[in-house]
Amino acid sequence: MSASTPAPAVILVRPQLGENIGACARAMLNFGLTDMRLVAPRDGWPNPEAWPRASGADRVLDDARVFPTLAEAIADLHTVYATTVRPRRLTKPVFTPSGAATEMRAQTAQSGLMFGPERAGLETDDLAVAHAILTVPVNPDFGSLNLAQAVLLAAYEWFKAGDETPAQLLAHHAGPAAHGELEGLIAAVDEVLEAADYYNVADRVAQSKRNVRNLLTRPQYTDDEVRTWRGIVHALAGKRRPKIVPND
Amino acid sequence: MSASTPAPAVILVRPQLGENIGACARAMLNFGLTDMRLVAPRDGWPNPEAWPRASGADRVLDDARVFPTLAEAIADLHTVYATTVRPRRLTKPVFTPSGAATEMRAQTAQSGLMFGPERAGLETDDLAVAHAILTVPVNPDFGSLNLAQAVLLAAYEWFKAGDETPAQLLAHHAGPAAHGELEGLIAAVDEVLEAADYYNVADRVAQSKRNVRNLLTRPQYTDDEVRTWRGIVHALAGKRRPKIVPND
Repeated sequence: MSASTPAPAVILVRPQLGENIGACARAMLNFGLTDMRLVAPRDGWPNPEAWPRASGADRVLDDARVFPTLAEAIADLHTVYATTVRPRRLTKPVFTPSGAATEMRAQTAQSGLMFGPERAGLETDDLAVAHAILTVPVNPDFGSLNLAQAVLLAAYEWFKAGDETPAQLLAHHAGPAAHGELEGLIAAVDEVLEAADYYNVADRVAQSKRNVRNLLTRPQYTDDEVRTWRGIVHALAGKRRPKIVPND
Repeated sequence: MSASTPAPAVILVRPQLGENIGACARAMLNFGLTDMRLVAPRDGWPNPEAWPRASGADRVLDDARVFPTLAEAIADLHTVYATTVRPRRLTKPVFTPSGAATEMRAQTAQSGLMFGPERAGLETDDLAVAHAILTVPVNPDFGSLNLAQAVLLAAYEWFKAGDETPAQLLAHHAGPAAHGELEGLIAAVDEVLEAADYYNVADRVAQSKRNVRNLLTRPQYTDDEVRTWRGIVHALAGKRRPKIVPND
């Protein structure tokens, strides 16, 4: 993976509604894509209906470039993926969004992601100029992705492929407390339970203590959580003390 | 991965606009999710503005259930993920959408994906009942995902985690032609090139032939493509023949 791979361009081929162009800009910027190219937008450009739907991704729209033909729009791009819902029988490799993202990240040159008009999608002649097909695996019984959703998923996978956040689990959990803190808690709990006569069956004391230890160990409590437990135990000990002291 | 894992429920907590509920239904059904649960929707339920935005995912809306409280909405679910844009400091594991999807698929019981109201997101009390946090890694400078986009990405990753399509490359390419077909093509091309006096530098013939072979071998042409090539070669041979025949 090259850290310097430029983010792919998004080429909207004959887009119809300004609102959808705006929604695409928003989806792009969410995942760090800024190079928008419009091929023969139906209602001309700039289209004032795009900006309100971009929710602040204005700079993508401000910098969008218009081209009369697809060939001109992609002339400087290296690998161009054409997005289709149902890949027609074409002699081109077909990638999922994550497959395309991996390929694009492996290159140093800028790639392009082509999307067709809202109603009809890309025409066969548009597909012919692409190097590969990108298709989103969807529910075979309901595959109605709109333009901005298709852009969102392709952009999301591109961002994800370069993101250094561990994919499985973000490191936001504070992490378990030091073991000594846990031992202190276990000892304090033990003390309260002994005072409460919890360990009252002689031949099960060892097993019961192991069970209590496990209850407190497996959750990997953080420092904060251990402190909260210590407060609870303290309160419980305080409640018990009046009962126990008179018997002493 | 359990093939029998039920698709997760989507719990929309105090959703505001019917249009957004409809867009969520569409995003859900695109990736095979059908169990929508609404907690105290602001404008009541059913909300007629939802259906037009669902683009045909009516059955998700028709079957949506309304609950007065979050606790009731999730009572039967096993692991519940709360979606947040910026995870607050909470002692809960934080997952990416793909991390959560992997976890959900590993279970046999139904999980839930919680999403907050459009403007404010989930409140701290809502987050407290979740088992884990789900957050989408986004452009740190522009992380404006709307409700349906967040649902789309979580649902997409769930579908992807159970999809048996090879992630990298769908098997839509017809595959290379049988080697004998390729050899036949190479021989036919050789013949045309010889007739055209292409191999005219004696000590480079072998290398030139290897180059031609490589040009035709590396693309892994399909049967259809080989047939197209044979037609081209045939035509070229036909064009050449008149030039060559007079010299014979």
